[in-house]
Amino acid sequence: MKPVVVRNIPRADAEACKTLARLGVSTSHEALGRSGLMKPYMRPIWSGAAICGPAVTIMAQPGDNWMIHVAIEQCQPGDVLVVGVTADNTDGMFGDLLATSAKARGVQGLIIDAGCRDVATLKEMGFPVWSKAISAKGTVKATLGSVNIPVVCAGVNVTPGDAIVADDDGVVVIPRQLAAEVAAKGAKREADETAKREKLASGILGLDMYNMRPALEKAGLVYVDNPEDA
Amino acid sequence: MKPVVVRNIPRADAEACKTLARLGVSTSHEALGRSGLMKPYMRPIWSGAAICGPAVTIMAQPGDNWMIHVAIEQCQPGDVLVVGVTADNTDGMFGDLLATSAKARGVQGLIIDAGCRDVATLKEMGFPVWSKAISAKGTVKATLGSVNIPVVCAGVNVTPGDAIVADDDGVVVIPRQLAAEVAAKGAKREADETAKREKLASGILGLDMYNMRPALEKAGLVYVDNPEDA
Amino acid sequence: MKPVVVRNIPRADAEACKTLARLGVSTSHEALGRSGLMKPYMRPIWSGAAICGPAVTIMAQPGDNWMIHVAIEQCQPGDVLVVGVTADNTDGMFGDLLATSAKARGVQGLIIDAGCRDVATLKEMGFPVWSKAISAKGTVKATLGSVNIPVVCAGVNVTPGDAIVADDDGVVVIPRQLAAEVAAKGAKREADETAKREKLASGILGLDMYNMRPALEKAGLVYVDNPEDA
Amino acid sequence: MKPVVVRNIPRADAEACKTLARLGVSTSHEALGRSGLMKPYMRPIWSGAAICGPAVTIMAQPGDNWMIHVAIEQCQPGDVLVVGVTADNTDGMFGDLLATSAKARGVQGLIIDAGCRDVATLKEMGFPVWSKAISAKGTVKATLGSVNIPVVCAGVNVTPGDAIVADDDGVVVIPRQLAAEVAAKGAKREADETAKREKLASGILGLDMYNMRPALEKAGLVYVDNPEDA
Amino acid sequence: MKPVVVRNIPRADAEACKTLARLGVSTSHEALGRSGLMKPYMRPIWSGAAICGPAVTIMAQPGDNWMIHVAIEQCQPGDVLVVGVTADNTDGMFGDLLATSAKARGVQGLIIDAGCRDVATLKEMGFPVWSKAISAKGTVKATLGSVNIPVVCAGVNVTPGDAIVADDDGVVVIPRQLAAEVAAKGAKREADETAKREKLASGILGLDMYNMRPALEKAGLVYVDNPEDA
Amino acid sequence: MKPVVVRNIPRADAEACKTLARLGVSTSHEALGRSGLMKPYMRPIWSGAAICGPAVTIMAQPGDNWMIHVAIEQCQPGDVLVVGVTADNTDGMFGDLLATSAKARGVQGLIIDAGCRDVATLKEMGFPVWSKAISAKGTVKATLGSVNIPVVCAGVNVTPGDAIVADDDGVVVIPRQLAAEVAAKGAKREADETAKREKLASGILGLDMYNMRPALEKAGLVYVDNPEDA
Repeated sequence: MKPVVVRNIPRADAEACKTLARLGVSTSHEALGRSGLMKPYMRPIWSGAAICGPAVTIMAQPGDNWMIHVAIEQCQPGDVLVVGVTADNTDGMFGDLLATSAKARGVQGLIIDAGCRDVATLKEMGFPVWSKAISAKGTVKATLGSVNIPVVCAGVNVTPGDAIVADDDGVVVIPRQLAAEVAAKGAKREADETAKREKLASGILGLDMYNMRPALEKAGLVYVDNPEDA
Repeated sequence: MKPVVVRNIPRADAEACKTLARLGVSTSHEALGRSGLMKPYMRPIWSGAAICGPAVTIMAQPGDNWMIHVAIEQCQPGDVLVVGVTADNTDGMFGDLLATSAKARGVQGLIIDAGCRDVATLKEMGFPVWSKAISAKGTVKATLGSVNIPVVCAGVNVTPGDAIVADDDGVVVIPRQLAAEVAAKGAKREADETAKREKLASGILGLDMYNMRPALEKAGLVYVDNPEDA
Repeated sequence: MKPVVVRNIPRADAEACKTLARLGVSTSHEALGRSGLMKPYMRPIWSGAAICGPAVTIMAQPGDNWMIHVAIEQCQPGDVLVVGVTADNTDGMFGDLLATSAKARGVQGLIIDAGCRDVATLKEMGFPVWSKAISAKGTVKATLGSVNIPVVCAGVNVTPGDAIVADDDGVVVIPRQLAAEVAAKGAKREADETAKREKLASGILGLDMYNMRPALEKAGLVYVDNPEDA
Repeated sequence: MKPVVVRNIPRADAEACKTLARLGVSTSHEALGRSGLMKPYMRPIWSGAAICGPAVTIMAQPGDNWMIHVAIEQCQPGDVLVVGVTADNTDGMFGDLLATSAKARGVQGLIIDAGCRDVATLKEMGFPVWSKAISAKGTVKATLGSVNIPVVCAGVNVTPGDAIVADDDGVVVIPRQLAAEVAAKGAKREADETAKREKLASGILGLDMYNMRPALEKAGLVYVDNPEDA
Repeated sequence: MKPVVVRNIPRADAEACKTLARLGVSTSHEALGRSGLMKPYMRPIWSGAAICGPAVTIMAQPGDNWMIHVAIEQCQPGDVLVVGVTADNTDGMFGDLLATSAKARGVQGLIIDAGCRDVATLKEMGFPVWSKAISAKGTVKATLGSVNIPVVCAGVNVTPGDAIVADDDGVVVIPRQLAAEVAAKGAKREADETAKREKLASGILGLDMYNMRPALEKAGLVYVDNPEDA
Repeated sequence: MKPVVVRNIPRADAEACKTLARLGVSTSHEALGRSGLMKPYMRPIWSGAAICGPAVTIMAQPGDNWMIHVAIEQCQPGDVLVVGVTADNTDGMFGDLLATSAKARGVQGLIIDAGCRDVATLKEMGFPVWSKAISAKGTVKATLGSVNIPVVCAGVNVTPGDAIVADDDGVVVIPRQLAAEVAAKGAKREADETAKREKLASGILGLDMYNMRPALEKAGLVYVDNPEDA
């Protein structure tokens, strides 16, 4: 595979991204049909951020952040950087200097299947990162990778321009062409959940609200009053 | 094992639970004789909560939260839900809708040997969860399990009604019949520790306060002033 | 290896430690030439602390904190306790009583390749700990170890008196004799970074600031406008 | 919990154990209704062994094998030793001397949620062990535990006398009272599988043998000939 | 994503596969330019097998092997089954019955990012499997997935028909269109290595054979005879 | 730390190494006083090898095997190569070409806190390796490290010339100056164990052979005949 930078990628619809950011990861993941979720080891370095934007993807060598510099030039305001690496790695491939540069470019945040450092400064800057690890381990700028090719990040294949939704629940990848459809489904789901939440808060049981009792009985669930009968 | 829901379980003494919540996990664990502690991968999704209440137990299939709905009906105010699963799993089996329902029922919190989602909302609601993972991965409602049978959760066997103590140090299980005795022992330990803390804060060494020097000498500990003598 | 306590160890220069604490782990690690970093599983039990001080080292048996008591007597104000263990362990070998004693002695913080407990109290006390785990698991005082001998902690060999830098990015060990030199190099690096940060914040790309374009071209990086050309 | 040794436990039926050993772990686990399986980190130290016998259980402190000596006295020919520990541990708590003693007593094998050593010798002796780790780490004989009380081992609660089935697929625990029933169900399952195996070997597809096509179609599965149609 | 089965996929060249199987994983991975390697947790259930064939891919739900039955119908002699799952899982989704069916169809082996069971029988049958885990945990046939769509397996994106090379070193994925080119490069590499091996066996050092000394000197490597000079 | 190669290191006594190889890891580790054991993730790539020789140490960058070539020149017959890396890594930094070169030099084996490849060939060659992982991931020759300086490998500090004992139980490091003493202690221990083994094989219990009953009784162990009494 020859190292390449692809310019002018198509991007997920901006309005859809706005909606998906509000809906959050769990609702977006459900609306997509329960796929596209990165592995749960991907955690935010500070809590409370919630973003969605088109992916600018980076395939990097472990411990080498050269291509992140290359990728920043390809970013537009609202983009989300997504870094996959060719072998398991926890080195701190991203820190406050890169974040300053990315922020100046309007990048919303970073998703990296490796480590991140300067986390106290990144929190002060309000620049959100979801990473596999926090590590001060320095990196080199020695080997080429690629920008804006499909990459596997934390178990999910990411195509450039896909909508990346990230919050305290993790990170989910919505294929670019489906972003608007998933945003619409998610918004509908959100409305449904508000009604359900009110019912449940009033004390109505899920067993009744979802009418689960007949199915439970049919499946063979038995109620007893005394453990010795069980 | 036939799927069963056991109703009207006996519960750990409420007054003892109140004391155990104040004492916290580390003191309760010591007072029990250093057993009953869940594995340290069980972490709170937000810090600062400290609870104790009788366990309503759930044996669930990985990725299936049907039985949590069933269990909520069996809860009384002050109860703590404890979920064991039949295979390692990190799916987000509990979110804000279930939390709303549990809270309406007076449930104090959830202990789950799997994943949890909607964590930002759960924090806003003040509903505490101790889990193995945070994950947006959706779950199904397809296979029966049981409620209020003994379950293994994070390495500990939990009998329904046992007192579950949980705080930032983790989760410990106090057998129901021992709750009052352990609370009393823990309260005594707490009083002792206050006196010790004051002495140590004044600069008295643990070596002297615990009279460790003779035992150390007898065990053969040697002091030297120069590493080359060591 | 006979159990021994070495007294009156030489210590890293206090002024250098002050500088290193301000510079932080990532800059110190770079200034040392990217070595000495503990494994990234070492995490602070609360965020925001940033310390540097000479190591008082402890070689302990897993689950036995006897030697920590012994070590506290050897501490001077500003010291950092560093605990290595002879086998993988997550037990809570350090809690609020030991922290009270250490704090009375002027100890700045603890680095332990095992577990820690009473974390809510330690946070209230403002006593920082970097550990492998949080666990209430109680420990014994039964077997001797040593104090102030070289120990391996989280993958790094620590010699007594080495400067230990710890913050939200992790923990790095600076050899005692190099502390002043590394502090000076780090301060220079810090000054350089301030200038770079301003340029990057103004929108200048790393590609241009570091003059990376010729090297990238020479290495064979190709730009295309259409993924199909890639 | 006071340390105790329970003598003269009831044991799973010997004939049932013989059948279960022949059926193996996967079939026994299915016949029990897919429960009782220890976590997959439990691996044989050498491959090819397949045993089943009643459990003599040991609750031990991590790194302390005193109670294994105590337990061996309680063993009868055909028994299987099962060791649970009170905290995660990989120390080599069992080696060739204990194996020699156990073998002299007629013990069939050992299941230990910790480490094992002298594995080359154990293989020569033909003494099978399923463990979490292989480690030469020596252990002490300092703290009491219990023998023949219920213990959690690798995520499963084991009651003394339960039938322990272990082979290259792992370890499953069959409750003592169900051993004969499960053996009978498993034998029937085995017979069914022989017939199925022959059909499948002849080229008949599972899709047809299990008549899956209507259910797949009803669930919405679509066949296409060209990926572009998908 | 709608569940779909794609029939009549294009397949990697058979002759190239034959060559790649002989070259093995490490050489093929080098010849591809060091990409496409699955994570090292993928291990053979028995050692000594070495295969290469076109991928028939399966996207399955964790713990659900329904789609493996569906996929077998799509297999041709020489194919390799590749199973990706939508969340981390170790359940035993493949056993001797499925292996019998696959073997009858001429399938060479299975790559599964989950668990496998009946491993003793699979070894007897000579059916090779590379998996993440060995586990007897039974699975269900309840939820659809897809066959012959791109799937992520152990960190690598696999397109149907790609050449899958697997041996004791692990598993590497060679894109279908590159199979012949990579096989040719690998064969050349193999020839070069034979010559190198002979030189090295005769005692010539890599330092000299690769002419490394000038580069080492230029990079600043220093030789000393006494550690104290270092 | 400047990259350096230290020549003409002192080496552990050859006769002592011969004895330690025969005694094996577990006995050597006991004879040293239960220290120096590498973490249990270090496993042999094939079983049955048992070696002991003086360490030629290598501090390498993750994924860079340049310094292994440099180190081989420094080896004498009987030496054992020990590779530590500056960050967690599983890349296959050693394969059959390096093994051919090492073998030609008389090297007994390799201990590497990273990955190894060509394992089928290494087994055929009879060249033993203990590693953290098996991985085909290729490495570069780009960054200097050092040879024959103290390195941390799998949690243990190794000084050049130390005696490295490795077998199916793992790897233990015996300090060079203690090799003869530890070999003598271990040989004595071996003799004692032979006598013990015979007694235990004859049916004498460890409880009696070690006279454990009084200590158990004093510690409070209670025997009961009925679980309900426990």
